[in-house]
Amino acid sequence: MAKPIRVTVWGENLHERKNPIVRQIYPDGMHNCIAEALREDRRLAVQTATLEQPQHGLTKSVLAETDVLVWWGHAAHGKVRDTVVERVLKRIWQGMGFIALHSSHYSKIFKRLMGTSGSLTWREAGERERLWVCNPGHPIARGIGKCFEIETTEMYGEPFAIPTPDEIVFISWFEGGEVFRSGCTWKRGNGKIFYFRPGHEVYPIYYHPVVRLVLRNAVHWAAPKGQTWIDSCPQISLKQTREKLVRKGPRLHREREQGFR
Amino acid sequence: MAKPIRVTVWGENLHERKNPIVRQIYPDGMHNCIAEALREDRRLAVQTATLEQPQHGLTKSVLAETDVLVWWGHAAHGKVRDTVVERVLKRIWQGMGFIALHSSHYSKIFKRLMGTSGSLTWREAGERERLWVCNPGHPIARGIGKCFEIETTEMYGEPFAIPTPDEIVFISWFEGGEVFRSGCTWKRGNGKIFYFRPGHEVYPIYYHPVVRLVLRNAVHWAAPKGQTWIDSCPQISLKQTREKLVRKGPRLHREREQGFR
Amino acid sequence: MAKPIRVTVWGENLHERKNPIVRQIYPDGMHNCIAEALREDRRLAVQTATLEQPQHGLTKSVLAETDVLVWWGHAAHGKVRDTVVERVLKRIWQGMGFIALHSSHYSKIFKRLMGTSGSLTWREAGERERLWVCNPGHPIARGIGKCFEIETTEMYGEPFAIPTPDEIVFISWFEGGEVFRSGCTWKRGNGKIFYFRPGHEVYPIYYHPVVRLVLRNAVHWAAPKGQTWIDSCPQISLKQTREKLVRKGPRLHREREQGFR
Amino acid sequence: MAKPIRVTVWGENLHERKNPIVRQIYPDGMHNCIAEALREDRRLAVQTATLEQPQHGLTKSVLAETDVLVWWGHAAHGKVRDTVVERVLKRIWQGMGFIALHSSHYSKIFKRLMGTSGSLTWREAGERERLWVCNPGHPIARGIGKCFEIETTEMYGEPFAIPTPDEIVFISWFEGGEVFRSGCTWKRGNGKIFYFRPGHEVYPIYYHPVVRLVLRNAVHWAAPKGQTWIDSCPQISLKQTREKLVRKGPRLHREREQGFR
Repeated sequence: MAKPIRVTVWGENLHERKNPIVRQIYPDGMHNCIAEALREDRRLAVQTATLEQPQHGLTKSVLAETDVLVWWGHAAHGKVRDTVVERVLKRIWQGMGFIALHSSHYSKIFKRLMGTSGSLTWREAGERERLWVCNPGHPIARGIGKCFEIETTEMYGEPFAIPTPDEIVFISWFEGGEVFRSGCTWKRGNGKIFYFRPGHEVYPIYYHPVVRLVLRNAVHWAAPKGQTWIDSCPQISLKQTREKLVRKGPRLHREREQGFR
Repeated sequence: MAKPIRVTVWGENLHERKNPIVRQIYPDGMHNCIAEALREDRRLAVQTATLEQPQHGLTKSVLAETDVLVWWGHAAHGKVRDTVVERVLKRIWQGMGFIALHSSHYSKIFKRLMGTSGSLTWREAGERERLWVCNPGHPIARGIGKCFEIETTEMYGEPFAIPTPDEIVFISWFEGGEVFRSGCTWKRGNGKIFYFRPGHEVYPIYYHPVVRLVLRNAVHWAAPKGQTWIDSCPQISLKQTREKLVRKGPRLHREREQGFR
Repeated sequence: MAKPIRVTVWGENLHERKNPIVRQIYPDGMHNCIAEALREDRRLAVQTATLEQPQHGLTKSVLAETDVLVWWGHAAHGKVRDTVVERVLKRIWQGMGFIALHSSHYSKIFKRLMGTSGSLTWREAGERERLWVCNPGHPIARGIGKCFEIETTEMYGEPFAIPTPDEIVFISWFEGGEVFRSGCTWKRGNGKIFYFRPGHEVYPIYYHPVVRLVLRNAVHWAAPKGQTWIDSCPQISLKQTREKLVRKGPRLHREREQGFR
Repeated sequence: MAKPIRVTVWGENLHERKNPIVRQIYPDGMHNCIAEALREDRRLAVQTATLEQPQHGLTKSVLAETDVLVWWGHAAHGKVRDTVVERVLKRIWQGMGFIALHSSHYSKIFKRLMGTSGSLTWREAGERERLWVCNPGHPIARGIGKCFEIETTEMYGEPFAIPTPDEIVFISWFEGGEVFRSGCTWKRGNGKIFYFRPGHEVYPIYYHPVVRLVLRNAVHWAAPKGQTWIDSCPQISLKQTREKLVRKGPRLHREREQGFR
C-alpha cells in the first residue's frame, strides 16, 4: 500500500509556447499544471514528458516504470513517431493505464486503441458545459455530486465515433444545445483506458477543482491491479499443455458412465 | 419477405380514460395512436392489448404470434400480474423483440430484463428536448438527421439506473440543463430490447413524425432474425453428446504428435 | 487500508444435512468451508448466514454491514423469500459485491440480476475440468497460471443463458467434450457481480487451493471502491437543478458569438 | 429486397501457390473456394481480390461497391500496404461489414479494429475441434444444431487478446485440452465485424458444409442495414445547430415555471 502509483503526464507543449493566451494561463505548460493536480495526492509519484524530448520522453525504461500514462495532444498528433506509438500500445496491453484528455480523441494512440476514427463535432464559442454523473458509484466519480459545471469551454458534440464504452461516467450538456459522452472507460488487453473531455487550451480548465479531482480518481482507477500480461503468441505442444496443468484437487469419488473413455 | 412482422402494442389505457387532457390528445387511447404510427408501414401487422383485458390481452397464443411487443405503462405497473410478466419474459428469451416506451422504465418487465432499479430523475415543466443521434448508421436512426426536437415534454435525467447499453442510439439534451440516454439497446436471451424515452401522456408526442419513424425503425430492428431459442436446462449424457455431433468434414491428412492420446 | 472487507457467505445448508456423501466432505457445511478459504486472507472479515435462519440470516443490518455477499444455493432456490431477494438486490445496486457460485446460476437473485433464465446443460459423470484464464491480467486471475484443473466434477455446458459478460475471466474445457464460460463479471447499479462455476456438492471442490485463491481474489475485486449509490427517483425542479450545480471554475476570457443567448 | 448483397472475398493466395499440400486442397485458391461457398446463396453477388493485384484488388471503387469484405491472410500480413489498410478501415466505419477468418487475427486491419495485439496460443497436431453454439438464436448460428465438429484442424487457444466481444456465437473445444472464442462480433463505427476461427490452409476446412453455412449467415448478418455514416469532424456554429433542428412536434400546452429561461 505504501508503494505509490507512478504516473507520467505527457504534454504536446506547443500551444503554450506559441500562443500568448495559452502561455498566460499555463506559464509552465499544461502538462505541469496537470502534474500539480495529481501531486495533491501523496500516493501518486508524478513525472512529465513532452513531444520535443528524445523519443518524446517515452523511452522503454520510462514506460516500464509508468503505471498510468496521462496524454494531452492536439496540434501535433502527426508528429508522434510510430515506434513510440507501438511502444506505448504494448505497455498498455501489459497493464499500464491510459488517460486520454480532450483533443487526444484524435491522437494516434487513442485511435489505435479504439479502432474507430474518434471523430466528433465541435464549436468554440466560450459556452457553458455541465457534466452529469451517470454512474454515481464509480470510483472515478468519487467525491463529486450529481453534476459539475465548467463556465467557459469549447463544445464537443455527438456523434462521437467510439466503440460502445464499457462504462460511461459523465455525459455533458452544452449551453448551445449539444450533448457528449465526456467520461468513458474501455479495456484493451490488460490496460484500463479513460477518456475525459474537459481541457481546451485557451481556457483554464485544469485549474478547476472538480476536473483535478476527476484526474486523481481516474489515475487510481486506471492503475493496474492484477499481474502483468506479457502478450506473445506461443506455440504449445501437447506435452507442454499437460505439464503446465496444476492438478491439486483431491479426488474423492468418481462415477463414470459405462463406456466413457 | 412477404411475411409481415407481427406487432402487439400494449397500453395501460388508464390516463386516457381518467384525465381529460390525455383523453383530448388520445381519444382512442395511446396504444391506438402508436398502432397507427406502425400501420403506416405495410410490412407490419399490428394489434393492440390493454391492461383491463383478461390476462391483460397477453395470452399464450397472442404472445406466440407476436414478433415484437411494444409497451407503454405508467400508473399501474403494480397491477400487471406476475404470471403475465413471466410469460412475456420467456417469450422475449425465445426471440420476441421488446420496445419499452417512456415511463415503462419502471415496468415490471423492463426492470426484470435489466436487473437494475430503472430509476432516473424527472421534471414536468413543459420544456424542450433535443434528441441527438449518437450512432448515425444504426437501423433505428434510419432516415433521421443529426438530431430532432420535441418542443414540449417532461424531462428525464441521468443517472439512469440501467446496465451499460449494448448500443446508445439517442442522447437527449433538455432546455433545463439535463441529459439522458434516450434510446438504448440490449439483448436478453434471444430477444432484442429497445428503450425509447419520448412519450409523456399529457403531450402529443406520439403524433410527432420523427418519433413515429423511430417506432417503425425499432420494430424492424427488434424483430427476430435467427431461429427460436427454446430455453431449457437439459441433462446431457456422454452418449447423447456424441450422437448429436455433426461430423462431416473430409479428413485429409492428420499428423498426430507421438504419444497424443 | 486497515479497514477489512466485510464478507457474508450464504449457504443453503441442505445437502450437507441430508446427503451423507456431502456431509462427509463438508461436515461443517459448505458455507463454513468457503468462509475458511476466505479467512486465509487477514484483510477479510468473514461471517456466514444460512437459509434456515430467520430472514435467512440476511436482515437489513447484516446486509448494511456486508461489502461482499457470496451465495451458494441449489435445491431450495424457491424457498428464498421474495422480500429477502428484493432487499439483497437493493443492497447490490448500492454497491455490495455479489459472488454467485455454481448452481446459484438458478438462484432468484442471480436470475433477477441477469434478466435471463440462467439455463445451461449439465452432466454428472465425475469428469475432469480444465479452467483456462482468458484475461491474464484480471485481478480475479492473480496468482494463477495459464489454467488449472479440477479432476472430478459435474459438467456445465453452453449455451449458458446470460447477457454478454462485461469480462470473461475463465472458460472451462470438459473431458466429455463441452465448454463453459465459468468465470464472468457484470455490473448492476453500483454492484459488481462475479459468477464462478466450480462447486458441485458431492465433490470436495472448495478445498481446491486454486478455487480458494479465486474466491479470495474475487472478494477483493467485488468490494465497493466508490461511494454508495442510494438509488431513488427524485423529481427535480428547475430551481433545484440550478442550486445543486457546482460552479467553481475561474473565468478567464469568454468570446461569445454575436447573438448567443 | 431483390438487391443482392455485394461481397468481396480477399485472399492472400500465397500458400496455395507455394505449398503443394495446400494447392492440392485448393487448386483455385482458398479465396475461390470461399467465394463458391457464398455463391450457393443466390442473394449474394460475390467477387474476389488478392494480394498480388494492383492495390491488392481493393481500389476505392471496389470498396465503394462492397457491402461485406471477407478476409483471409497469414504469411504476408506485413505486405498489405498501409494506404489500403486505411482505405478499408474508413469503408468499415461507413458501414461495410468485415469478416476476419482464422489467421487474420494477426492481419493489420483486424488488429487496428480491435486495438489489441490479437495474440493467442496455437498447435498444429491435426486434432479434433468441436464448436459449440453459445447464442442459439443469433442469425449467424441459423440452421446449426448445438455444436458441429471439424475432425482435423490446427488448435487456437485462450487467452485470445481481443476486447470483450459484443456477442460470442461459438466457443471451441479442442481434443488436446484447449478452448477458444471462435466466433465473435464487434461494431466499429457503423461496420459490423465477425471473427471466425476455422480455416487452416493445410486442411480442407472451407469445404465443410457447416463452415460454409456460417460464412453465408455471417455475410447476411454483417451487411449494412442502416444509412451510411460519413465520418468527418465538422465545426458547427451556433447558427447551424439551430437551423439543422427538425421542429415538427405540435405544441399543445406548455406550463413553464416562473423564471425559466
